Amino acid sequence: MDGPAGPRPLDGRVGGRSLDGHEAGVILERARAVVDPALRSALESLPGSLRRIALYHFGWEHADGTPAAGNAGKAIRPALVLTAATALGGEPAAGAAVRAAAAVELVHNFTLLHDDVMDRDTTRRHRPTAWTVFGDADAILAGDALQALALRLLAEDPHPAAPAAAARLAACVVELCEGQHEDTAMEQRSPGEVTLEQVLLMAEAKTGALLGCACALGALYAGAGPRDVEAMDAFGREAGLAFQLIDDVIGIWGDPSRTGKPAGADLAARKKSLPVVAALVSGTSAAAELAELYTAPYEGEDLARTALAVERAGGRDWAQAQAAERMARAMHQLSRAVPDPEAAGGLLSLAEFVTRRSA
Amino acid sequence: MDGPAGPRPLDGRVGGRSLDGHEAGVILERARAVVDPALRSALESLPGSLRRIALYHFGWEHADGTPAAGNAGKAIRPALVLTAATALGGEPAAGAAVRAAAAVELVHNFTLLHDDVMDRDTTRRHRPTAWTVFGDADAILAGDALQALALRLLAEDPHPAAPAAAARLAACVVELCEGQHEDTAMEQRSPGEVTLEQVLLMAEAKTGALLGCACALGALYAGAGPRDVEAMDAFGREAGLAFQLIDDVIGIWGDPSRTGKPAGADLAARKKSLPVVAALVSGTSAAAELAELYTAPYEGEDLARTALAVERAGGRDWAQAQAAERMARAMHQLSRAVPDPEAAGGLLSLAEFVTRRSA
Repeated sequence: MDGPAGPRPLDGRVGGRSLDGHEAGVILERARAVVDPALRSALESLPGSLRRIALYHFGWEHADGTPAAGNAGKAIRPALVLTAATALGGEPAAGAAVRAAAAVELVHNFTLLHDDVMDRDTTRRHRPTAWTVFGDADAILAGDALQALALRLLAEDPHPAAPAAAARLAACVVELCEGQHEDTAMEQRSPGEVTLEQVLLMAEAKTGALLGCACALGALYAGAGPRDVEAMDAFGREAGLAFQLIDDVIGIWGDPSRTGKPAGADLAARKKSLPVVAALVSGTSAAAELAELYTAPYEGEDLARTALAVERAGGRDWAQAQAAERMARAMHQLSRAVPDPEAAGGLLSLAEFVTRRSA
Repeated sequence: MDGPAGPRPLDGRVGGRSLDGHEAGVILERARAVVDPALRSALESLPGSLRRIALYHFGWEHADGTPAAGNAGKAIRPALVLTAATALGGEPAAGAAVRAAAAVELVHNFTLLHDDVMDRDTTRRHRPTAWTVFGDADAILAGDALQALALRLLAEDPHPAAPAAAARLAACVVELCEGQHEDTAMEQRSPGEVTLEQVLLMAEAKTGALLGCACALGALYAGAGPRDVEAMDAFGREAGLAFQLIDDVIGIWGDPSRTGKPAGADLAARKKSLPVVAALVSGTSAAAELAELYTAPYEGEDLARTALAVERAGGRDWAQAQAAERMARAMHQLSRAVPDPEAAGGLLSLAEFVTRRSA
């Protein structure tokens, strides 16, 4: 299976612009090249033991401390900071926003370190998670230190936007914590106790908030006014929700060779992902079957039946339509802050990229 | 037992000033009164679930969410911020430093929440620790949120000292994490593998750093220059080490009715506290006996023998002499930054208070 055909809300909207992901790839590569030195220099400032855990987590060192090729993720968040800064203030704004881009990436990785401890996830970016290698305590401490490094980078930044950026990033951390709390709490409830609104709010806090914050920080470093900053935040949030919806679809129907996760892993883990909750609240007979499957202990042969029940209850269609709707809202917000399609092109490409990464 | 007679390095040094702790008590009460509203308002800004955990941890709510009388500790760190600001800049500086005082207290409590999870401590301020009530995940998240709130308070503070204060506090968080890592790592080593230098460095990072940071932040808000800021940091660090030394003595020989912990709890837990490590490295026959007792599984009747071995190996005397030495260094640093004894009086009282709290 090739993953979902996915919503393609951008098709036909951006004229002659190439939508084959090439431009997004170039943007992401450039962001990595610019932000990695700032990230590395921040990590190098850590005392030995914490530095080792952080460098392992970022994929720059093996568990034994020898250098590794590096697999620190796709740098989507730093790319959003820099691309938003460029869209609203040109190249000089992007240059000034490198610290902010590194700070956002540090916050993202702090939450990954802690979430992996809480969720007992054992694999991250195709490697054993930090807590499985260094223990819970050190993974928690390394995460704490990354949050501090992030806010230190901004506190030491003489740019006039830095204090507002730091305040915004700190507020975003609280929202990320709330999202993770809701996610954990929701997984402990029975399927019938979770509403679609709750799971949408959770996804916005857990995923949308930091993408929105990244875009807002880029706008702040471009000297944008409050209206544009908020529009950019909303753009990132809506794109983030679209991303989460597609990610959840991939978590059920995605190709394991592309996702790096076993087929149906989210169903096997009884995750109350967005398509599942949409299916559960659909009032269909498939919903009742799904609820029953989800409360029974997991057995291998039920997986195909469970996926089919989600699909028959409309969970897949709903998620894809909702993703398209969220992308449309994202585009609307983007056009408010950056009316010039040429200037908005990079952000369009990134939004398109994150929402069709398995296509 | 009344606890250690303790070092009294201040005796006879401060002329007619009362050393019965009354003045420190007044300073701490005033600090609580000024800082609590800022703290509460920061905590109230948290989303519901995290707010509940934070308010429980601060003693302002019971586990069921009903109001509690509050037992948020002695406010030593916020008092140091405000008193340092007063010493170097008078009352207006202290007034301006209230956010910074609240930020330091938030950081302190973030580390308590996380340390309790890592150390599996079940009691804090005579109440069940947050993780025992709300689970590990929520205690970790509440701690993460408190760190974010702390740095947000400073990011939103228009005072010209705020960015430098935020950078300093963030750097201090990294040091606190390193201290906690070293503490955890040291407890896993065999008694013979720990040096006195290591345990002193750990204590400085884990306890001294934040007391030093508190004093440095007060100085920053008073507009002090780099030399005075560093002297105030050193004052707090040295006083913090003196405090830790006395605390460790109390942990072995303290009166349970005063400490709130069972007699000899640190020995029973095989803690490598400062007097114990000093005893272990003393090269005496009592050191060999202590090393043997510390590697054998704990049995109740060994407790008195263990305490005696630490004492016979010179651990108690060393700790008390070292505490006196650290206090002398603290006084020296204080006199550099605040030569006027009258202006330094409040800080003297606080330093005296933290190092003789069981007397």
